Amino acid sequence: MHKIPIGVLGASGYTGRTLCALAGTHGRVELAWAAAGERRGECADIGGRSVRFIGLDDAPLADAAVVFSALPHGVSAPWVARARAAGARVIDLSADLRPGAAVLGEATGARVVGASPAIYGLTELARDEVRGANVVANPGCYATAALLALLPLLVRGLIAPGATVAITAASGVTGAGDGPRRDLLFAEVTENFRAYAVGNDHRHLAEMRAVCARFSADVDLVFTPHLLPVARGILATVVVPLIEPLADPLALWQAHYRDEPFVEVTAETPSLREVVHRNAARISVAAAAGVRQPTLIITSAIDNLLKGAAGQALQNANLLLGFEESVGLPA
Amino acid sequence: MHKIPIGVLGASGYTGRTLCALAGTHGRVELAWAAAGERRGECADIGGRSVRFIGLDDAPLADAAVVFSALPHGVSAPWVARARAAGARVIDLSADLRPGAAVLGEATGARVVGASPAIYGLTELARDEVRGANVVANPGCYATAALLALLPLLVRGLIAPGATVAITAASGVTGAGDGPRRDLLFAEVTENFRAYAVGNDHRHLAEMRAVCARFSADVDLVFTPHLLPVARGILATVVVPLIEPLADPLALWQAHYRDEPFVEVTAETPSLREVVHRNAARISVAAAAGVRQPTLIITSAIDNLLKGAAGQALQNANLLLGFEESVGLPA
Amino acid sequence: MHKIPIGVLGASGYTGRTLCALAGTHGRVELAWAAAGERRGECADIGGRSVRFIGLDDAPLADAAVVFSALPHGVSAPWVARARAAGARVIDLSADLRPGAAVLGEATGARVVGASPAIYGLTELARDEVRGANVVANPGCYATAALLALLPLLVRGLIAPGATVAITAASGVTGAGDGPRRDLLFAEVTENFRAYAVGNDHRHLAEMRAVCARFSADVDLVFTPHLLPVARGILATVVVPLIEPLADPLALWQAHYRDEPFVEVTAETPSLREVVHRNAARISVAAAAGVRQPTLIITSAIDNLLKGAAGQALQNANLLLGFEESVGLPA
Amino acid sequence: MHKIPIGVLGASGYTGRTLCALAGTHGRVELAWAAAGERRGECADIGGRSVRFIGLDDAPLADAAVVFSALPHGVSAPWVARARAAGARVIDLSADLRPGAAVLGEATGARVVGASPAIYGLTELARDEVRGANVVANPGCYATAALLALLPLLVRGLIAPGATVAITAASGVTGAGDGPRRDLLFAEVTENFRAYAVGNDHRHLAEMRAVCARFSADVDLVFTPHLLPVARGILATVVVPLIEPLADPLALWQAHYRDEPFVEVTAETPSLREVVHRNAARISVAAAAGVRQPTLIITSAIDNLLKGAAGQALQNANLLLGFEESVGLPA
Repeated sequence: MHKIPIGVLGASGYTGRTLCALAGTHGRVELAWAAAGERRGECADIGGRSVRFIGLDDAPLADAAVVFSALPHGVSAPWVARARAAGARVIDLSADLRPGAAVLGEATGARVVGASPAIYGLTELARDEVRGANVVANPGCYATAALLALLPLLVRGLIAPGATVAITAASGVTGAGDGPRRDLLFAEVTENFRAYAVGNDHRHLAEMRAVCARFSADVDLVFTPHLLPVARGILATVVVPLIEPLADPLALWQAHYRDEPFVEVTAETPSLREVVHRNAARISVAAAAGVRQPTLIITSAIDNLLKGAAGQALQNANLLLGFEESVGLPA
Repeated sequence: MHKIPIGVLGASGYTGRTLCALAGTHGRVELAWAAAGERRGECADIGGRSVRFIGLDDAPLADAAVVFSALPHGVSAPWVARARAAGARVIDLSADLRPGAAVLGEATGARVVGASPAIYGLTELARDEVRGANVVANPGCYATAALLALLPLLVRGLIAPGATVAITAASGVTGAGDGPRRDLLFAEVTENFRAYAVGNDHRHLAEMRAVCARFSADVDLVFTPHLLPVARGILATVVVPLIEPLADPLALWQAHYRDEPFVEVTAETPSLREVVHRNAARISVAAAAGVRQPTLIITSAIDNLLKGAAGQALQNANLLLGFEESVGLPA
Repeated sequence: MHKIPIGVLGASGYTGRTLCALAGTHGRVELAWAAAGERRGECADIGGRSVRFIGLDDAPLADAAVVFSALPHGVSAPWVARARAAGARVIDLSADLRPGAAVLGEATGARVVGASPAIYGLTELARDEVRGANVVANPGCYATAALLALLPLLVRGLIAPGATVAITAASGVTGAGDGPRRDLLFAEVTENFRAYAVGNDHRHLAEMRAVCARFSADVDLVFTPHLLPVARGILATVVVPLIEPLADPLALWQAHYRDEPFVEVTAETPSLREVVHRNAARISVAAAAGVRQPTLIITSAIDNLLKGAAGQALQNANLLLGFEESVGLPA
Repeated sequence: MHKIPIGVLGASGYTGRTLCALAGTHGRVELAWAAAGERRGECADIGGRSVRFIGLDDAPLADAAVVFSALPHGVSAPWVARARAAGARVIDLSADLRPGAAVLGEATGARVVGASPAIYGLTELARDEVRGANVVANPGCYATAALLALLPLLVRGLIAPGATVAITAASGVTGAGDGPRRDLLFAEVTENFRAYAVGNDHRHLAEMRAVCARFSADVDLVFTPHLLPVARGILATVVVPLIEPLADPLALWQAHYRDEPFVEVTAETPSLREVVHRNAARISVAAAAGVRQPTLIITSAIDNLLKGAAGQALQNANLLLGFEESVGLPA
């Protein structure tokens, strides 16, 4: 069978390499080229095969039907424009083109990708839009975990008006990339845990707010990310005041995600172990006892490199290319 | 100098051994005996000296001026009564005598310790009561981290009436004791993270509610504990809606804890690394941006075995015995 | 295609569950039943499907063409005999039937499996014997790592006569099983490392010696295992004095393993990361500099649950059943 | 009491900061200044007090009675000469002045420190020489662990002539410093283990050989270091062929180290946990069973930052300054 050529910009980082690995076992696409900035010229063993990173400027953009950009925030948007100009459809894994990016002072993608803005590719929300998109802004990892937790409430308008929704989440260190930072050394992270960007200062919050706004949810989002001493995985714990009590919260989530191939709703609280190395979100929900305001506690786990990045990007690419949504994805 | 004899019931677990180790370097107290249930007769190397665990029934309760009980919840209360009857003053590290214990169906301590209930020994809140107490109920580790975060607001009545206060906390595995449980094996915990007791089903919540009630705080507490892949340490992240914005939140905490030897208020978010092996709570606070309801995010870190258990117990013992509060405590 | 039914005795432990998971994705075999002792009646999610453990005595031994026993050492041998009597071919993952077992006082398998002893199933050494075997004694994990390191020298008689061969190896905690032992709790293993069974007191040494004896190698084996703070993986570091210097040590290993699907010889020192979750041994070799006696340092890495246990067992089952050796194995 | 001023060159790394922390609690010395290269001008919280790193060129060398250099190998030697010229006595923690450094192509210290070479400061071997030294070359961490294991045999000439001594050791990541290297990121080290510098290519080997030569030991040393997924600690496992069997190996080590404050000989195999955060070596020994050539297996554990670096440096400084050897050291 003819395979569709894809290219990866920013292929040398954790996300880029995961994209290359998924392409290698996908069956319907093949990696035409992998380009990196600083590490161009290097070779890496990715999923058992050797991948050589060409320079970004050497990337034959037009040779790829789909270009994935795993370039850093602020760097990616112009490359999305170049890939578009070369005729490729683009899935951008940076924050540059996501809704609300400008709010936080990021480069806005609207200018670079022309009149039509990028489609925000939270697949379970925007499946139909993604199918016809030329540019997809792949969601942030924290936003994916939190929004999949909240979608059943947002769609049905069940969150108490004016409520404060507390999203407390913890991520493994690959979420911070593989740049050689002193604070990410093993000796600094092991046996440690801390919050960061406290006070709603994280770029993923803009996406979460934009999706809430799409559903006219009248909420205050408070988001606090933490750094876990694990390599991979995100767990979001979301506390949500409701308009009224739900008789069977779990049943609502089960119904909402019944037909989703990559969302699992479980009675037992999810753990990172259950989702790591899989393109799955695993979600549970419980009503808080002993409170007057009816309140839910939702826990949502994903692999930050798969459902939180490269896996969801391939899921979106499958839609773009008219494939079965689950082709080539480890579930 | 004459040293005050102390005894430890339940000395073989993580908390009990930490009590023995602190006693060994304290200077003003000495370990008269250490008693254990299942592991009686065993010897352990604790802080460089060999400690032999006698059986519980062999413990010469009357030989100790202060008896610490690190026995399991539900087992401890009758031993507190026996130690009291033998003339010792008692610091109970179980949940049995803490306020609200009965709410969760635990053995209530009121019956066993006579007419006067145990003093709830959150030192920074109850210093004066502890000085004269015969029985101290030492706070739970999660409760210590969360209540020290909230005290400056509780005391001043600054929490928005009717507010939902979301307390999301993560603990190292020593918080679950050293019983040989399959789910606490290294292979199960490493590279993993999960919530447990979701839905406000944790015994420490009763203490937190009781303290909030003491200040007539009109709040809904929602508490979600998590298990971290670290040996020691608790980090609580508390999201609190306020009556009105605070001009300088950090200054309020700094003022409140100015004279406290074991509470550190820092501009930078605390990490477990900074408090482990020390009897310290380290707290930071930030206002949430981009919300209409003024809201604070407080992060509070302690060592669950020290400020969260054995360290605070010694801190309380120092008060009971008329010593300087900080004697023998690693700060 | 008709699938061959297999059964697993001792299915609830780490090795047993890995066997069940491999059977689930194998393509040519199917899991007919999974039996456990203590945990019979429980259900487990294994590789995305629910497996219910029946009791050992309820196992329909005759319904399986191949029975795998992952029962504990000392317990397994009689069950091998029962499975044999029921007509199944058997792969025993315990030490009971391995060569030299009696030396260490283990139950000897010769009696229970009849006149013909079990075939020692180090696949790369005994491929042809395994094809026709009725009972295979699957090698120990440490023995697999060490013997694959040494085979090229043993076959060619290149080890210095009378030499001391120092095998120093480190294993992840799953090698010790999932029994709830206090010394395997996360809090005891994290940030720790130690040797155990020092002084040649480990049961895997008998297998290593038996294989060396098969090649009439005149050597003293000294084996020291260590416990690593990781879940999976074994690295063996073997120091071997040679008869004479080798011009190109790496080339010898490359030649020896050229056609092996599951042994990789690399110029770079292998790491656990490269072999975990794969049925592969990865080996490198270097000559020691600055010594008079020519000496090699061989490093050999495997996943203790795959090439060191369940993976090699399936590799052997593939041979028994006349399949391609690599069917269903993650390489 | 008047305190002796000391200075630290290279104070910002793990070893340098440990030196500053020890100085802060020592009682008889005080930190006059702390100098760093790249990180000059930064402040660090070290043991509860804030330390500001001045630039190397700004270090008032003459203001310190003892200067410790924790500068990198190759950079340190000239600074030792400058400190000497300024009148300070110097303890150099780099490899530059250690015996055999030139063998590996390092800058030799002989030239820079004048006619008399540096004293190799393995305290338990060279206590008397250190007392009168002006320049001490503090041993490497691996060399300290391995040589303390071997000293009782070296001193008595008990190693078999011509023997291959296999030293296999594993170190926590702080042994590699706090430079921001990609291969030391948490995500690369967790759940991983590998050998490095295989083939006797590690600079600490020269020291070990030099000490063996001092005792005219006719041995081939083969040294293989490994990187452990822990922050601190080294465990060396040493396999040594003997001239003749020892009736009671443990008794020999116990006798040899009877009066040493910082060497503990134990029947049980040492673990990292027992030595981390202490200036102690912990050693056990066992005879290998089932071999013809009598052979010992010695295991030796230290904290690489304390007995393997800063702790031993302070131990040596105590001797230089005429203090009790154990002053200010956590044992």
